Amino acid sequence: MKSLHVSGAIIRRLPRYYRYLGELKKDGVTRISSGDLSDIMGVTASQIRQDLNHFGGFGQQGFGYRVEYLYDEIGKILGMDRVHHVIMIGAGNLGTALANHSGSCTQDFVIDAIFDSNAERIGKRIRGLRILSTDSLEKYLASHDADIAAIAVPREEATGISERLVASGVKAIWNFSHVDLKVPEDVVVENVHLYESLMSLSYKAKAAEEKYAERKETT
Amino acid sequence: MKSLHVSGAIIRRLPRYYRYLGELKKDGVTRISSGDLSDIMGVTASQIRQDLNHFGGFGQQGFGYRVEYLYDEIGKILGMDRVHHVIMIGAGNLGTALANHSGSCTQDFVIDAIFDSNAERIGKRIRGLRILSTDSLEKYLASHDADIAAIAVPREEATGISERLVASGVKAIWNFSHVDLKVPEDVVVENVHLYESLMSLSYKAKAAEEKYAERKETT
Repeated sequence: MKSLHVSGAIIRRLPRYYRYLGELKKDGVTRISSGDLSDIMGVTASQIRQDLNHFGGFGQQGFGYRVEYLYDEIGKILGMDRVHHVIMIGAGNLGTALANHSGSCTQDFVIDAIFDSNAERIGKRIRGLRILSTDSLEKYLASHDADIAAIAVPREEATGISERLVASGVKAIWNFSHVDLKVPEDVVVENVHLYESLMSLSYKAKAAEEKYAERKETT
Repeated sequence: MKSLHVSGAIIRRLPRYYRYLGELKKDGVTRISSGDLSDIMGVTASQIRQDLNHFGGFGQQGFGYRVEYLYDEIGKILGMDRVHHVIMIGAGNLGTALANHSGSCTQDFVIDAIFDSNAERIGKRIRGLRILSTDSLEKYLASHDADIAAIAVPREEATGISERLVASGVKAIWNFSHVDLKVPEDVVVENVHLYESLMSLSYKAKAAEEKYAERKETT
């Protein structure tokens, strides 16, 4: 199966299917109808059939989907059939939390090394990993593979770190710094801008408040 | 100006405009052309003109945009013209990091209280705030306003917490737990699913790798 044939919209929905199928698998469910999957996911059954039919013949009339098979196939498309080696740049509050959180939640993404430029942090340990000096980033990458580099440093430092990572051959960046990174076209970036996420929530809350205030007035 | 007239696509771009304008303002820039804004944001000048013209006459031929005015107006639309009172449920690694991180990054979102159900954490302090027992959530909300509740608890607990928050009148939830919350239509949820974000990155990295491997083969 070639992942290239799958549209962008479906790709964005796949992690969610993967999560639900993983839970079903863990609960010992071996097959599920699109109707039942629809109920637990809050998506229409026809959307599910449409999405999953892209992967060819997974569902069978009157039988439903084979949970484990579908989970594995979606996993392959997402690249979840292998372990990802992750390095973390920034061992402040956020970096430490991400390292602890990721370490406890998943075996698919393994944090191999953590770097910081603050002398007070270098040498301390997070989940058994000694915090390395950011100065040694190039030396580390010369002898270790890193599938993903997470950046959780102050915004002033993020661009410089990103450039050094790219120069050392890193191809995927998970960016938590409040800055848009400019990278070559063969490097991918996934941004998690927490502050912007809070602003979106603020906007949605305001819009909902106005909407329901208006309703109250007219009823 | 009525925020209701602005389309969803623009709304999703507004936090980014707000971030860039905020930086310009901080740097003492009072006006900027759409061309210069285009250069620093990596968006076409025509997209910027189109987006910002929705707010009526901000840009002037040969003069550009007034940075502070535009920043303030976009801020109002996003609801950033007031302070948001936030409570945090879950004082584990992620909750603690979010509390520390938010506290240090912004004055617009103020964390008023932190709750946890773990007896070992209750009574300890994060940024001067004593961690309260989750049992006291209803009591707290009976006498305090909370514009936003952040949920950073294990997934098994998230649904129950969400229901209790909604029953106590909370209208906006910032959800970090790996579960989709079901809420009434006047309650808004902004999800930050970190694990799914990593999966998207994994997929993008795999797709880019295949694409550039193919190019190499054909050249």
